[in-house]
Amino acid sequence: MSKGTVVLAYSGGLDTSCILVWLKEQGYDVIAFLVFIEDLRAEFVADFIWPAVQANAIYEDRYLLGTSVARPCIARRQVEIARKEGANFVSHGATGKGNDQIRFELTCYALYPEVKKHGIPVPVTPRAPWSMDANLMHISYESGILENPKSHAPADLYLMTKNPEDSPNAPDVLEIEFRNGVPIRVSNEKDGTSEESPLGIFSYLNTVGGKHGVGRIDIVENRFIGMKSRGIYETPGGTILLQAHLDIETFTMDKEVRRIKQGLGIKFSELVYNGFWYSPECDFVRHCISKSQENVEGKVMLSVFKGQVYILGRESPKSLYNEELVSMDVQGDYDPCDASGFIRINAVRLREHHRLQGLASTTKK
Amino acid sequence: MSKGTVVLAYSGGLDTSCILVWLKEQGYDVIAFLVFIEDLRAEFVADFIWPAVQANAIYEDRYLLGTSVARPCIARRQVEIARKEGANFVSHGATGKGNDQIRFELTCYALYPEVKKHGIPVPVTPRAPWSMDANLMHISYESGILENPKSHAPADLYLMTKNPEDSPNAPDVLEIEFRNGVPIRVSNEKDGTSEESPLGIFSYLNTVGGKHGVGRIDIVENRFIGMKSRGIYETPGGTILLQAHLDIETFTMDKEVRRIKQGLGIKFSELVYNGFWYSPECDFVRHCISKSQENVEGKVMLSVFKGQVYILGRESPKSLYNEELVSMDVQGDYDPCDASGFIRINAVRLREHHRLQGLASTTKK
Amino acid sequence: MSKGTVVLAYSGGLDTSCILVWLKEQGYDVIAFLVFIEDLRAEFVADFIWPAVQANAIYEDRYLLGTSVARPCIARRQVEIARKEGANFVSHGATGKGNDQIRFELTCYALYPEVKKHGIPVPVTPRAPWSMDANLMHISYESGILENPKSHAPADLYLMTKNPEDSPNAPDVLEIEFRNGVPIRVSNEKDGTSEESPLGIFSYLNTVGGKHGVGRIDIVENRFIGMKSRGIYETPGGTILLQAHLDIETFTMDKEVRRIKQGLGIKFSELVYNGFWYSPECDFVRHCISKSQENVEGKVMLSVFKGQVYILGRESPKSLYNEELVSMDVQGDYDPCDASGFIRINAVRLREHHRLQGLASTTKK
Amino acid sequence: MSKGTVVLAYSGGLDTSCILVWLKEQGYDVIAFLVFIEDLRAEFVADFIWPAVQANAIYEDRYLLGTSVARPCIARRQVEIARKEGANFVSHGATGKGNDQIRFELTCYALYPEVKKHGIPVPVTPRAPWSMDANLMHISYESGILENPKSHAPADLYLMTKNPEDSPNAPDVLEIEFRNGVPIRVSNEKDGTSEESPLGIFSYLNTVGGKHGVGRIDIVENRFIGMKSRGIYETPGGTILLQAHLDIETFTMDKEVRRIKQGLGIKFSELVYNGFWYSPECDFVRHCISKSQENVEGKVMLSVFKGQVYILGRESPKSLYNEELVSMDVQGDYDPCDASGFIRINAVRLREHHRLQGLASTTKK
Repeated sequence: MSKGTVVLAYSGGLDTSCILVWLKEQGYDVIAFLVFIEDLRAEFVADFIWPAVQANAIYEDRYLLGTSVARPCIARRQVEIARKEGANFVSHGATGKGNDQIRFELTCYALYPEVKKHGIPVPVTPRAPWSMDANLMHISYESGILENPKSHAPADLYLMTKNPEDSPNAPDVLEIEFRNGVPIRVSNEKDGTSEESPLGIFSYLNTVGGKHGVGRIDIVENRFIGMKSRGIYETPGGTILLQAHLDIETFTMDKEVRRIKQGLGIKFSELVYNGFWYSPECDFVRHCISKSQENVEGKVMLSVFKGQVYILGRESPKSLYNEELVSMDVQGDYDPCDASGFIRINAVRLREHHRLQGLASTTKK
Repeated sequence: MSKGTVVLAYSGGLDTSCILVWLKEQGYDVIAFLVFIEDLRAEFVADFIWPAVQANAIYEDRYLLGTSVARPCIARRQVEIARKEGANFVSHGATGKGNDQIRFELTCYALYPEVKKHGIPVPVTPRAPWSMDANLMHISYESGILENPKSHAPADLYLMTKNPEDSPNAPDVLEIEFRNGVPIRVSNEKDGTSEESPLGIFSYLNTVGGKHGVGRIDIVENRFIGMKSRGIYETPGGTILLQAHLDIETFTMDKEVRRIKQGLGIKFSELVYNGFWYSPECDFVRHCISKSQENVEGKVMLSVFKGQVYILGRESPKSLYNEELVSMDVQGDYDPCDASGFIRINAVRLREHHRLQGLASTTKK
Repeated sequence: MSKGTVVLAYSGGLDTSCILVWLKEQGYDVIAFLVFIEDLRAEFVADFIWPAVQANAIYEDRYLLGTSVARPCIARRQVEIARKEGANFVSHGATGKGNDQIRFELTCYALYPEVKKHGIPVPVTPRAPWSMDANLMHISYESGILENPKSHAPADLYLMTKNPEDSPNAPDVLEIEFRNGVPIRVSNEKDGTSEESPLGIFSYLNTVGGKHGVGRIDIVENRFIGMKSRGIYETPGGTILLQAHLDIETFTMDKEVRRIKQGLGIKFSELVYNGFWYSPECDFVRHCISKSQENVEGKVMLSVFKGQVYILGRESPKSLYNEELVSMDVQGDYDPCDASGFIRINAVRLREHHRLQGLASTTKK
Repeated sequence: MSKGTVVLAYSGGLDTSCILVWLKEQGYDVIAFLVFIEDLRAEFVADFIWPAVQANAIYEDRYLLGTSVARPCIARRQVEIARKEGANFVSHGATGKGNDQIRFELTCYALYPEVKKHGIPVPVTPRAPWSMDANLMHISYESGILENPKSHAPADLYLMTKNPEDSPNAPDVLEIEFRNGVPIRVSNEKDGTSEESPLGIFSYLNTVGGKHGVGRIDIVENRFIGMKSRGIYETPGGTILLQAHLDIETFTMDKEVRRIKQGLGIKFSELVYNGFWYSPECDFVRHCISKSQENVEGKVMLSVFKGQVYILGRESPKSLYNEELVSMDVQGDYDPCDASGFIRINAVRLREHHRLQGLASTTKK
């Protein structure tokens, strides 16, 4: 007689295969949920990567959150399956020291609080020479020989990006069009390629970025549980999009709105990294960020070459850029005297501060 | 009879030459203060660039503030000369639409409130094809044909960095050593070069970065006065240092201290961009940031190639990185059950939120 | 022949009367806009005070922004009249050292950029013994003898609130009901009074607060232009509402949403104080704050007595408060072991820090 | 044979008495550490309350953190005793649902990572009618009948403050002098009382505040573990000090420094509430806040009456308040034209925004 049904996020790797066998031996019915067969890629881009693009999401100034945004996507589907199949248990292969266990389990608690998780005693065996985790957005590499933060990553590590030394000697030039802060079209001037669906756009950017070796980083990061860990990531398409979005956003968004939104984006990144995609505060922050993107619209021209993304130009029907106002060659509707007044008022405080310091130093004498 | 003495920040260019003549015609004695002859470079690095490195200073996520940090350095010296020479006036060639007038004048008000500024009627003439401003840290290009945000920068614009397409086909590999969050040594493994003085280190990084085409950006930014403007910058040494400092900082600094310090760094960047280097709040923020750097110590290995900086590894006597603790291959002093408790407590709030939403949807039915 | 039409915000006081005469002498047609006759009170409460209540708006921890929220309300109407009457000029009596000139003029620039303002040479004459500014939300007192920050305010200064020493010896007990973070009903248990319109609610709270001497403060504040000034304010109804709203908000809002919203509220308060009610960033912040209030619903019971507001209790259909979960008398769905795990994980970082400090001190020996 | 030595934080109440007996029965040697006999009061004021005063520490806008600041003080001493006596265990009576277990245990992990805690199976018995926790700074009441957030607190609950209805009908007038942001003297004009030691000052403020019924609040707060709980607190001296410190701080601190410091104070409050007094980030924040207090010096005059604190005036040798500059009766060193320029520059952005919206609405037609 079955002890119940378990939905297992099954990767096909050694760990989750062990778990699968063990669960069956223990008397459970197991539904192995294969992320790659269950094609979640289109909704992964639209529902998870796009909000991250709007937020300029980046953890600790460097990491583009490729794994972090994938976890809630996978766990959401797993919970849907569990509910549909009447399964009381879910299981996964994430180990106890990392962020992924947290991201996975917090999502389950948020979306299906009654569900039970299975803590599976996966034997901790040395994995030579390192472990990797791949999804549409990135590949991450860690553990094994990479745990020594001083040792260099082997040259043949990367699977998603070409080594910049071996990448083409001529750039690709792209135009990316945005509306509401997300890309709606990418085109390549040279070969006439054009993509308009979220999945098409993102996949194409991965291809171009990968070809030119874009998006490799080697960092030490702070896990939610308070450990520092070393991770190596390659995020080709995401890196191009971050640069392009930064550009069109600054071009179209009011300066002070941008400043407030920047703070919300940092908060969003922390929440997503820590596994709180499905939380009241992350809902709230996503709503606010999405609101800020209403005018983030226009086209960015950029080139991709030898690991780098170079912004070349931008245009927008909604830009707050006013060429006549800013021009050094035209007076425009700008009176230089105003600047003097502006400066003198801003200096009121500085002069008072100076006055007081003068008094202090006089007193000391 | 002289109307008084003016200390003029004299660049040797057309604008300040006009001002010089005009001032003399008006009956002033003029002290032309030539920044390049008055060698401020060593103090520029130690007193202005180093604090920016500690702060990971970056304006609107992209601009490394090369002009912004130079203004207070120049104006400070100009005020010193004015005081020493008994001059009542200072003058500069910064035009009325930009940030530099503000930065210059705020510094003067802060350091020498009694001084008078001279608003010189420099004829606004089209400057074909663009204008540039160079200092040890960077060159900026703007105006003229660059005012159209869509038009691409000409390939021969850049003076400080090689075009990545023409840069060497082999990387340089550097080791940068930090103490208190500032570099104290840079060495090149290949050719044995080593520099230890602030000016020596920064100049060498400029050389290597320039040779490999590092640090070019093309952005639209928000000026303090509320206009958007397009600027193109090349900051070779500063770009290398930002990446290296980010790495050693995250390696050695507590996660939560880093988060607070990150906010202070953003504040610092805004203040410096807006001209408030000499202000009570910038003094305060610099003090706090400096305090945060006490353990930011160690060595970063990196390669520089085709416009990119690649971090290769790092080591530190003060790192909070604990290889045994984080290892996936060793249990270490870490109980996986703790993570489950940690997650369940973090989920208390999420489950309550879910419960309330369930009530709400039930009620709606 | 007329030089044009001016819409003057006319208070009936000496200053604006002088301006009125002067404008006519100069050859302008003047439309004197009397805020008190043009009854703006209902929209002042609904469109300006209610958003401030949602934000828990408070400047520098103490000032409830009674004048700040009134300025954009008045200026908005003034601009409407100017547009309707085809007037090219607007004018006001706010003097040059204060915040009100800025608030007034920024609103005009934001809503009617083509309009011209008239800088009227109001003679600066000593106003014995102080000046005041009254609206439905508060009265402010400043200048004259109050400019000495050490001198105590005279006992007979206050017009809107009773001296607490003379106020009733028995409290009034009120129940305030909120929906979407704004009050929708107030009732007095004792005498059966009940109000449900925004204006009715706010006026009644003013009456009760005034009767019991609630909402007096004597502060030094920082004006936008960088001066410190001393102001005395009485805000009876607003003070009651701040306390009541804080209570129902904390009762119904998720902890982490609240933390983010708190930061937005501080930002909102600065913007409103500085005159940026009508700005892209204030629009954005108001939108976000309003979003946060969707579940801020329920009733707060409080008593008002001798200058104080005492919260007595609260209830809500949307509260996240879970009496069973929190109870010390019931185990509920809470496993104490989880707390131990939670603590140990939170301590990982602290123990690593301690370890490193131990190493440091060992090394020093 | 003993199983080892336990240092128990012993309150003398039922719970810790049970724990004491149980530990001895289990075969441990017990050192009962009585906080009230071990007089920690002077260091509690100087080392824990004073930093909270400097920070204007307040949790969720209302709670003055009376319990939160006491826990690290007690745990620090307990750890000192354990180290001195060679005890391997510490124990306490804090239950599993609250903040105090966390605060206690995090402090131990931070200061004595090798120590073991004892999770004692205290029987959870209904405690009629409520529980309380008292220290020099405050008394908190919770649980039992108070767990219903709607029910009013009984009138005879409070032990530290008089009921305002029964408090004196005449105020006490105090002068509090600050240096470096902490009080160095309090004096009562009427009866000539004067105190100068930290403990003397704080105790006297408790006496006066208690006599006049100052500092009672009834709130729902968010515990670290994500539950909402209802607490009632009375903090007489702390409430007076918060008001006085806010006043002298705003009087003497630069506006922009204050704004940054306000954010740090909010962070400090969260950290202390959550039990992270001894953490790298709290050390850092305390350092920064302390730095901000260097000029917070001067005297505040206030009256205490019927539950309220009224600021009457203030003076300081280090104030940035400039009576002549701010005066409406004197022109001073202030040119009204500067304000116009200041406003116009601030409006550049607003006008651009308006222009774009006009374009948008035109386009829509």
